Amino acid sequence: MTAFHMESGSLADGRQILYFNTAPDAGRGGFADKRDLGGRVSAGEIRYDVLRDEWVAVSAGRSDRPTLPVACPLCPSHGDELTEVPAPDYEVAVFENRFPSFGGFDAPGLPAPTEIPDGMETAVPAAGRCEVVCFSDDHDSSLVELSPERVALVVRALAQRTAELSARGDIAQVFCFENRGVEIGVTLHHPHGQIYGYPYVTPQTRKHLAAAKRHKETTGRDLFDDIIASERRGPRVIAENDHWIAFTPYAARWPFEVQIHPKARFADLAELPEEYIDAFAPLYLEVLKRCDGAFPGQQMPYMAGWHQAPVGEGREFGRLRLELVSIRRGAGKVKFLASSESVMGGWVHDLGPEASADILKGAL
Amino acid sequence: MTAFHMESGSLADGRQILYFNTAPDAGRGGFADKRDLGGRVSAGEIRYDVLRDEWVAVSAGRSDRPTLPVACPLCPSHGDELTEVPAPDYEVAVFENRFPSFGGFDAPGLPAPTEIPDGMETAVPAAGRCEVVCFSDDHDSSLVELSPERVALVVRALAQRTAELSARGDIAQVFCFENRGVEIGVTLHHPHGQIYGYPYVTPQTRKHLAAAKRHKETTGRDLFDDIIASERRGPRVIAENDHWIAFTPYAARWPFEVQIHPKARFADLAELPEEYIDAFAPLYLEVLKRCDGAFPGQQMPYMAGWHQAPVGEGREFGRLRLELVSIRRGAGKVKFLASSESVMGGWVHDLGPEASADILKGAL
Repeated sequence: MTAFHMESGSLADGRQILYFNTAPDAGRGGFADKRDLGGRVSAGEIRYDVLRDEWVAVSAGRSDRPTLPVACPLCPSHGDELTEVPAPDYEVAVFENRFPSFGGFDAPGLPAPTEIPDGMETAVPAAGRCEVVCFSDDHDSSLVELSPERVALVVRALAQRTAELSARGDIAQVFCFENRGVEIGVTLHHPHGQIYGYPYVTPQTRKHLAAAKRHKETTGRDLFDDIIASERRGPRVIAENDHWIAFTPYAARWPFEVQIHPKARFADLAELPEEYIDAFAPLYLEVLKRCDGAFPGQQMPYMAGWHQAPVGEGREFGRLRLELVSIRRGAGKVKFLASSESVMGGWVHDLGPEASADILKGAL
Repeated sequence: MTAFHMESGSLADGRQILYFNTAPDAGRGGFADKRDLGGRVSAGEIRYDVLRDEWVAVSAGRSDRPTLPVACPLCPSHGDELTEVPAPDYEVAVFENRFPSFGGFDAPGLPAPTEIPDGMETAVPAAGRCEVVCFSDDHDSSLVELSPERVALVVRALAQRTAELSARGDIAQVFCFENRGVEIGVTLHHPHGQIYGYPYVTPQTRKHLAAAKRHKETTGRDLFDDIIASERRGPRVIAENDHWIAFTPYAARWPFEVQIHPKARFADLAELPEEYIDAFAPLYLEVLKRCDGAFPGQQMPYMAGWHQAPVGEGREFGRLRLELVSIRRGAGKVKFLASSESVMGGWVHDLGPEASADILKGAL
């Protein structure tokens, strides 16, 4: 088990920054942010879509965010090069996003209403919180190149953030994720992830909760237990150890898609025992290496996110697992989501889930 | 009113081709396809996703489809240049897709089961039908450059296809759409659209039906009537005439998003009166010109599709309208769907729907 030590600091515009350190008293929290950032960016509002029964965030301030800036804002600050991280070095750092999709300084502390609104136009201020998670102070690294100990420290930081954000009262669901690769529009190459504290339960989670609830009522069993048992017997297992299993699901949508489940039931990262975190790190690194090895010389662009139970509702049916998906469909080829997927939600898997899993299984 | 005359032919591998002509006895159906295409490509299967309660198509044969081939297969055949269209010219031509996502020659004539399957792995052969719709025999044209009469002929062809596919018995929903632009992965630049005859009711349509049903039960009113009445009073109307209204919706997801509704209730294109088709064409051309004018010198990449009521269920709550969405978010910039949208279904509108609508309103 690797303990961690957390230090807190603040940025020039009042945003919070947290350092997750392996050693006590690292003294990183004491460095001042010497920039003049002006006022904080407000997140805007969330609007109710009457046609889909879903909330959509409107965040016009984000249009001003930088596109591949010359100086990396996620590197540590050095001399006159002042960044989002005032300390001169760090292991894992987490700070509030300067251009948040949700939350911000002037949002009230209430999540979206859960009842269906009357009327055709309903909006509420976008409560919630958006954070940036830096995995390393080495700009040229990548999550897949880090040590298992560092990956475990990242997961511990995400667990701490999940616990704290869940207790705020204005967040309905915590989502920790990483976007990687210019092919999916990543604007900062420094290794990092993000956390969205949504003020509503997301549409995908609502689907999963409904399916798990129905399965429990129909069969008396946990849906995820049944999925894991079925996939373990099947041809699409990518990696496995005592505590975790990684597989391409039977009805995969993306050309490459891996679900990583703990073999016991946990609602979220905050519930995950230390030994599960330690066992996750090497397994995840293996999966990432298989992804990068699928098409030699071509990093796999991916989106990877932790599904967690919502904070306040459906907690007994939500279950922690990681989902990694990629638009890579071949050497030098990406899948574009066109009208069928984007307008109707009708997906077509061109490779076939077994062929896709076989590529990952043969990639190391 | 413009009548049309339909001629039927067949391609070398047995697929059907239809010509929609303004003049009778054009004689296009009689041209033989002289190619040696070998056997037909089978569409594969659809798999049930237990976690989302949705069907997903697996169509491995599509991986072989051409990427920007040198000779355009949608141009008319001339001399030794043999294409998918045997006739030497055409107005509007529709043929079965050689690389179908659904259907194909060996699929049985049954749609997906509507009850929730038992078990973790359920698949059925992919019934349904995929068609290609060529808007013009001029390779270098684009829908926005065609005459209102030609656009109306295209819509009449789609209406005929909707009626015929709805009567087959193996199709649950007919979706007519156009993908336009290399930015969204279009591999053939010849102006064309597609038709998917899905063997299941798509996830988006299920959401819309549920919302319309609940609205009717709660208020006694038609949801779409209320949406149109609300949007007509609002700041996001892009274009309007006696029979149609085009607006950016209040809770838009995409940087540019336009819904085009007929002002009366029709379940699908097959129900649309002639005068509505004639009135649609100039309005749609205006909307497309506004899209292309939004960022001068840059064609707007878009996905445009007709929402139609399903064939067999929820017909009283489904309602015809066109949805056009674009990933363009600025001059030379596109929006990428990353983890929040792709994994969780959580959308963030960066421009703001009113600012987006203002750009289209000022674009001509």
